[in-house]
Amino acid sequence: MTNAAPIEFYFDFSSPYAYLASTQIEAIATKHGREVAWHPFMLGIAFKQEGTKPLNGYKAKTEYSKHDFDRAARRMGVPFKMPSDFPKITLAASRGYYWLLDQGKLMADEFLHKIYAAYFVNGDDISDMSVVSKIAGLCGTDEIAFRDAVTSDKVKQRLTDETNRAVTEKGVFGAPYMIVDGEAFWGADRLEQVEEWLQTGGW
Amino acid sequence: MTNAAPIEFYFDFSSPYAYLASTQIEAIATKHGREVAWHPFMLGIAFKQEGTKPLNGYKAKTEYSKHDFDRAARRMGVPFKMPSDFPKITLAASRGYYWLLDQGKLMADEFLHKIYAAYFVNGDDISDMSVVSKIAGLCGTDEIAFRDAVTSDKVKQRLTDETNRAVTEKGVFGAPYMIVDGEAFWGADRLEQVEEWLQTGGW
Repeated sequence: MTNAAPIEFYFDFSSPYAYLASTQIEAIATKHGREVAWHPFMLGIAFKQEGTKPLNGYKAKTEYSKHDFDRAARRMGVPFKMPSDFPKITLAASRGYYWLLDQGKLMADEFLHKIYAAYFVNGDDISDMSVVSKIAGLCGTDEIAFRDAVTSDKVKQRLTDETNRAVTEKGVFGAPYMIVDGEAFWGADRLEQVEEWLQTGGW
Repeated sequence: MTNAAPIEFYFDFSSPYAYLASTQIEAIATKHGREVAWHPFMLGIAFKQEGTKPLNGYKAKTEYSKHDFDRAARRMGVPFKMPSDFPKITLAASRGYYWLLDQGKLMADEFLHKIYAAYFVNGDDISDMSVVSKIAGLCGTDEIAFRDAVTSDKVKQRLTDETNRAVTEKGVFGAPYMIVDGEAFWGADRLEQVEEWLQTGGW
């Protein structure tokens, strides 16, 4: 453990590039004595605010990305299979993360990696509450309590607040969006720069 | 020289990230026995086709990029000063490049680097024909002949054709867009991957 600030990692469970980066960022953080502060948020709200669309809203970019997702996964050496149903509504998973976080970061982090693998490796429907709550159960929480929590106004409001903070205060407009000591890096292809910044203290 | 295919580099003289990448790509190419085939095109046409806007059309992305341009330039160790008037209409420079290319690649390449430096280092108005033709003159061509050429229908059509080829055949939607042996990489932050691809033959 260290007193150095954590790496802030803003993401949506529906983002392939954020999934890819999520498989790398903890090793980078640990190597440099940092933790990862995970911030799921509603990427759609950021797109609406910015006037952009999800990747599949653009024709040429979609073609490029389809090829690039696989290429990036191969480069990282991680499993990846583009889900046929994309993008997904991931509210339950995002709300669930924050509820689990209040009970313990280890459990919440295990949940997020399992959710990502369910969607981007196994192709499971992570918009389905029963899929999400089952994964929460596998992480050691009570499934019924989890379902009750993520449909409660309090937890819904939490995700809204976190999204507003990301978009309005932090200027997040895409995912993954990583902040290291106040320095923002957008995109899975910036992981090398994140690491370089940690190593050198900036340039 | 080598028989290996050149690195295709698609760019617009108005793109800060393409300027930054233009300062690096020749060294990468030379190191791996390649040449750079420069392809200026009308980025605005690609944006229109794709339904996107120039960087300054997005609020949060503009804030991020303003900071990132300087950071990327420092990382590369190249001079950069964001022009106050951005983006620019760069038709004369792009047409001029193709006309000069027919007379000799060395002269054309010198012209493109001088145009980029004029805009992104000195802040000159590269939408001004007199600025552009003066730079062409410095590269060893006749200024009057240059002006006549870049306002001719033939040279205008050349840029239109090159733009259509980039957008329609190659799927180019942004700049810089680099193609190595059929493999496309979008963005100045992909230069490391371009180099890795050249080095390893792909992954």
